[in-house]
Amino acid sequence: MTPVIARAAALTSLERLCVHTITTKPWSIEQAAEAYARAGVAGITVWREALADRDEVQMGELLRSHGLSIVSLCRGGFFTYRDEAGRRSALSDNRRALDQAAALGAPLVVLVCGALPGQSLAASRAQIRAGIEALLPHAEAHRVRLAIEPLHPMYADSRSAINTLAQANDLAEAIGSDWVGVAIDVYHVWWDPALQSEIERCGKSGKLFAFHVCDWKTPTKDLLLDRGLPGEGCIDIRQIRAWVEATGFRGPIEVEIFSEAYWAGDQAELLERVTQSYLSHV
Amino acid sequence: MTPVIARAAALTSLERLCVHTITTKPWSIEQAAEAYARAGVAGITVWREALADRDEVQMGELLRSHGLSIVSLCRGGFFTYRDEAGRRSALSDNRRALDQAAALGAPLVVLVCGALPGQSLAASRAQIRAGIEALLPHAEAHRVRLAIEPLHPMYADSRSAINTLAQANDLAEAIGSDWVGVAIDVYHVWWDPALQSEIERCGKSGKLFAFHVCDWKTPTKDLLLDRGLPGEGCIDIRQIRAWVEATGFRGPIEVEIFSEAYWAGDQAELLERVTQSYLSHV
Repeated sequence: MTPVIARAAALTSLERLCVHTITTKPWSIEQAAEAYARAGVAGITVWREALADRDEVQMGELLRSHGLSIVSLCRGGFFTYRDEAGRRSALSDNRRALDQAAALGAPLVVLVCGALPGQSLAASRAQIRAGIEALLPHAEAHRVRLAIEPLHPMYADSRSAINTLAQANDLAEAIGSDWVGVAIDVYHVWWDPALQSEIERCGKSGKLFAFHVCDWKTPTKDLLLDRGLPGEGCIDIRQIRAWVEATGFRGPIEVEIFSEAYWAGDQAELLERVTQSYLSHV
Repeated sequence: MTPVIARAAALTSLERLCVHTITTKPWSIEQAAEAYARAGVAGITVWREALADRDEVQMGELLRSHGLSIVSLCRGGFFTYRDEAGRRSALSDNRRALDQAAALGAPLVVLVCGALPGQSLAASRAQIRAGIEALLPHAEAHRVRLAIEPLHPMYADSRSAINTLAQANDLAEAIGSDWVGVAIDVYHVWWDPALQSEIERCGKSGKLFAFHVCDWKTPTKDLLLDRGLPGEGCIDIRQIRAWVEATGFRGPIEVEIFSEAYWAGDQAELLERVTQSYLSHV
């Protein structure tokens, strides 16, 4: 029996707020760093696109010089392949992601595990497990952890064959390494009838490595790029946060929003709405 | 342990093919009946929109005069509500659906169970169960069965709080009436890691009332109206059909496609593609 856990109270400061650079995609990482710091954001998760043509060591210094905590690097994964060249390419790209994370000073790489249309989910899941296991020595050598992020079932065709928190927990436990855990994003898992019990399980096994928030809008106009700010949709984020915190989790709360509509607008205004919605709805 | 079950062999006739009127939405029910019969389609599932301003008894006679088997009526459900007036309205509409099905001669009403943005999934699920239970005497009196259709998790905000086959099985078993079972649509459940075992469970409990097919396209451009014909997407329909038939199911195989693109085209050509894709990919 899962215990009844009351919804969490409002957060009263930004000290746990982390923002993903993809949320303010039009900004360079330099602009994001300055603006996040000025807004009182505590942490930053860096998307690899934001590092293009930049030296990761210098970028890490820059972010830290703004007082930002570097929470994670997004993203590794896409372990699925059709041939040996694809397998090698995926492994190479993931090793590169770990190199980047280590240079940047990010302790965690988030994994979007991959899926291929026309390949069975079972085959993709086997490739994913083998891919993560092949990556383990490199992760351990760099002391960078890996977080399996279960993706919403609407991405099972081409982005991830890991679609429930139960699957992510199963996979992390089967791999059985201290370097492999789970990233929980409310967008992907909010609908799951087993959510509370699987969060509890994830926490008990020491695998709850990251917690991402945003909201599910009604209607959602695009499967990928129409996420909402907290409070704009139907996800009971405070209930899910209460379940997450009942496991003892007190880590960063990461706002990760992909939105063509918000990217088209003023990013300073968007960041202001991120901090306000964080206090009002997370 | 779930047994390994080989993919089904191709179907060699249309004798189990049923088409949903929504698939050829631009056609009137009269046009659909004539065209389906001419194409050798065996069965028809009637959407209530197609019955607007028509006498259901006469429509039933018309369909049968074309040699069509009336498989089900779509759809009842939407049991969720915000107030007592909403509860009464939902119940009344579902009684009306049962009346229509009985008059038409349809032995089954498919249920899209409902969800309300901002209402907890747990509350919606309780309302759904109570709604179905309140409907049971009317269903039994009419000798019309009810099929709970689990909907893809991307519809958990506003269409259904029943999002996995496990949930549908749980609900049907908890209600425990011979008049309540499950409709399995590959579009909604194909991604589910528990799919095979839950199909087996559904069959064993005698609850597998209906089987719907279509395909998941990559990319999917609209959450509701961009379904594909069998073979156009990533769903391994023959594998899922093999699991369904391993339970003993030999009922109709229903093609149900919502597609703005196909509705905009020639419906006779679409129907030809439905029958061809059925033989090639279902």
